[in-house]
Amino acid sequence: MRWFKKNFYLNFSIIFLSILCLNEALLLRKSFKASKSPLKSKSKFSQNCRNSSFISQIIDHFNFNPSNDRKYKQRYIIFDKYAISNSPIFFYTGNEGDIQLFCENTGFIWEIAPKFDAVVVFAEHRYYGSSLPFGNESFVAPNIDFLTSEQALADYAYLVKHLKSTDQRLKNSPVVAFGGSYGGMLAAWFRMKYPNLINGAIAASAPIWQFSTNCEAFQSVVTFSFKKFDSECPDLIRFSWDIINQYGQSDKGLSELKEIFGLCKPLKSSKQLKDWIADIYGNTAMVNYPYETNFLAPLPAWPVRVMCSNITRYFNKSNPLSVLKSIYHGINVFLNYTGTSSCFDVESDTPSDIGMVAWTYQTCTEFVFPMCTNGIEDMFEKQDWDPLAYNRECYDQFKTMPREEWPLINYGGSSHDIKYHSNLIFSNGNLDPWSAGGVLNDVNEKLKAVIIENGAHHLGKESNEKDPDSVLIARLKEIEAINTWIQDHLKSLLID
Amino acid sequence: MRWFKKNFYLNFSIIFLSILCLNEALLLRKSFKASKSPLKSKSKFSQNCRNSSFISQIIDHFNFNPSNDRKYKQRYIIFDKYAISNSPIFFYTGNEGDIQLFCENTGFIWEIAPKFDAVVVFAEHRYYGSSLPFGNESFVAPNIDFLTSEQALADYAYLVKHLKSTDQRLKNSPVVAFGGSYGGMLAAWFRMKYPNLINGAIAASAPIWQFSTNCEAFQSVVTFSFKKFDSECPDLIRFSWDIINQYGQSDKGLSELKEIFGLCKPLKSSKQLKDWIADIYGNTAMVNYPYETNFLAPLPAWPVRVMCSNITRYFNKSNPLSVLKSIYHGINVFLNYTGTSSCFDVESDTPSDIGMVAWTYQTCTEFVFPMCTNGIEDMFEKQDWDPLAYNRECYDQFKTMPREEWPLINYGGSSHDIKYHSNLIFSNGNLDPWSAGGVLNDVNEKLKAVIIENGAHHLGKESNEKDPDSVLIARLKEIEAINTWIQDHLKSLLID
Repeated sequence: MRWFKKNFYLNFSIIFLSILCLNEALLLRKSFKASKSPLKSKSKFSQNCRNSSFISQIIDHFNFNPSNDRKYKQRYIIFDKYAISNSPIFFYTGNEGDIQLFCENTGFIWEIAPKFDAVVVFAEHRYYGSSLPFGNESFVAPNIDFLTSEQALADYAYLVKHLKSTDQRLKNSPVVAFGGSYGGMLAAWFRMKYPNLINGAIAASAPIWQFSTNCEAFQSVVTFSFKKFDSECPDLIRFSWDIINQYGQSDKGLSELKEIFGLCKPLKSSKQLKDWIADIYGNTAMVNYPYETNFLAPLPAWPVRVMCSNITRYFNKSNPLSVLKSIYHGINVFLNYTGTSSCFDVESDTPSDIGMVAWTYQTCTEFVFPMCTNGIEDMFEKQDWDPLAYNRECYDQFKTMPREEWPLINYGGSSHDIKYHSNLIFSNGNLDPWSAGGVLNDVNEKLKAVIIENGAHHLGKESNEKDPDSVLIARLKEIEAINTWIQDHLKSLLID
Repeated sequence: MRWFKKNFYLNFSIIFLSILCLNEALLLRKSFKASKSPLKSKSKFSQNCRNSSFISQIIDHFNFNPSNDRKYKQRYIIFDKYAISNSPIFFYTGNEGDIQLFCENTGFIWEIAPKFDAVVVFAEHRYYGSSLPFGNESFVAPNIDFLTSEQALADYAYLVKHLKSTDQRLKNSPVVAFGGSYGGMLAAWFRMKYPNLINGAIAASAPIWQFSTNCEAFQSVVTFSFKKFDSECPDLIRFSWDIINQYGQSDKGLSELKEIFGLCKPLKSSKQLKDWIADIYGNTAMVNYPYETNFLAPLPAWPVRVMCSNITRYFNKSNPLSVLKSIYHGINVFLNYTGTSSCFDVESDTPSDIGMVAWTYQTCTEFVFPMCTNGIEDMFEKQDWDPLAYNRECYDQFKTMPREEWPLINYGGSSHDIKYHSNLIFSNGNLDPWSAGGVLNDVNEKLKAVIIENGAHHLGKESNEKDPDSVLIARLKEIEAINTWIQDHLKSLLID
């Protein structure tokens, strides 16, 4: 995958993908060549996610040409063990990945479903998992043309209608949308664009304003997270880039960098190494959970704290080699917590992954998230946002160019833009870099923001005994809101 | 245009078109061959509508394939003589026709614009007027594929964004959408789907639920209107169909019908005549204004009253010829008020009109309005809704089939479906047949229905000294709501 690791900007979108999407995480992990770390063990909710259903969907909802009237089979998982008359439907708006993994790993929904007698539905996003409109031929033009968030939302709308019209018990059911990350964006947009079908939405870690936020914001939160756990750490990291640059000026230096960082292959440039390290900082900030996890990689509790502790312990500004070794020990927490990797690849050499091509297409059409660093307040080297370079890479891969203004026009990009909406909760961890593009303040009485103090990306998607109070409070707020939406809907039925 | 006048169901959609759209009205009028009645004299607002502007629009907003990245020039009319900083934008969402005619004939906007220092914009709907994405080649597949309400709304959204970003005074302006009939549906949907851009909407005579309403409802209102002005009239009309049928059983009878109704050409069947007469009743109900007009045809004040008075005057159930002559005298009010027509055509023989093809395409894709009559409560012959026949005609003409479920999924079809929306006013005349598909009751505190007692289709679009109080009250309610929406928006700016 040529663009992978090549473009700073595209890369962040891929981080977004990789953290969200467990099967994508495998891809990242593949580059840790010697790592034999086991896959995440199956969740306790796996048995609920075993059976797939399929619905026939129009491939192009926005075009009535009979040649676009073709159908495809969209996968979804439905669990109706708790169903009674007017059961609420808890509808997960699938992200960029195999829906089963989201089903197994979104414990929050499973934990609360029995309390609400809810029917749980996980809908797979078109062009991911088993929902490929043109099978293996889905990712070439013009077959890939129907991969847009608007088409995905229309699929979800048809599916809701289908569920309500085929099960008499659900005819008048309220529907609550759930989603995390891109799935959270979709859950929010589903409520915004189809309030005729959706009574409310819980949007977790959903950076719906990443299109319009300051390009420095993402890395600024990464820096904030590192600083919070070790006030010295960002300064030392910032200091380290120049050392890497100095080594990178000669072949001998590049060769030394390869040895110091335990790389499998020679470096082509110091930039390669720097991009790789910067990604690791961002990834670590995203999975900075208060307990051990095995999500992107096997990690200790609070990995940022451990990483910073390793960096600062032996850091000696007057000794360049010590600086580099400190950084290596730091990132090694992310790379090799279990100590089984023998060397690392800074560049993925795996072939194109299906989900990855699809998501990259989405970042090359609708979802441009401008990213930059200033090198002063943040701990990174200064790098400007270069839309031309971004667009060029997109054109090279897909022969298409982003329409970066479209999501702002279609979905909005500020609190003003969503002030008329209701029945939405946006939850964000304040240490999650993606919170930079999230809704962090209440917009109105019925559109609330929940901040999870010390929370990273997606913290709170499943209960853990080490959950901080902030997570417990967030869950309670969400449960209360869901209850209100459901009751309001059921009351409105009585009025008829 | 072979389908014209052939299909009862399609026909009503065309009535919808013809009443809305003055240039379409010309088409209808063309069939009154000898009629030399002058065109409606130019409105007093004509000078505001002289200058067209153009915006380059993406032809396919929902597809990023570079081959669909083509642009077309969308026409709009902007009048900014009253502009000050934060002037509200009054945005007319153009219907199925040349935008200039809507600009010249929507006096309500022009009457209130100076009071609000409003910038007035009339946006032309793609595939109508001068906004033809592929010029004269627009109406053949695949060029016609991009004629959908979703694409039109996306055009309007881009235009609003363009206006706000190119005129510094309008950067933070509130935007109020206006529209009548199909334009009213678009105005409502624009607010519903893009509340990030639109602060409120006035939707006049907008049958947004015509998709899901009882198929008898339309003709039931026509009957109600006739009954209101003459309690006997519907019974006599209902009685007349059988007489026509009796005449229609022989060639001699058909020939007599031709003479009695002053037709230019021999009749092929009595059905031809009956469809034509039924259309005239519907059209007359729609333009049943309290003052003389020259809209579909030159008409007296309260034409339904005059028509019924002519029908009932000499009606003699025991004399078939007298029945037919009474009906002829009745419909002659609509056909020939000025007495200049020498004969009439029951079937249009004009070539396809651009707007007509486009609107028919829309009724064959998104906008299926089921129509039927029961022949008992209504004054028509019983006729069932036959979706298969409807779809067959669509397939014959466009090789495409309607997706009648889509508007219900996308826009909703009941008060439940719009209960979360706000800042909308739906106004309907209670004598307008299209009110059958309209929002006739308040849905919530911020989504109100205004009923214009004794109002027909679009009554109230321009002040007239003979306006009934109901129209004046409706206008005041609308002005008050617009003012509230604007003030709320401006207040929200101060909070930032």
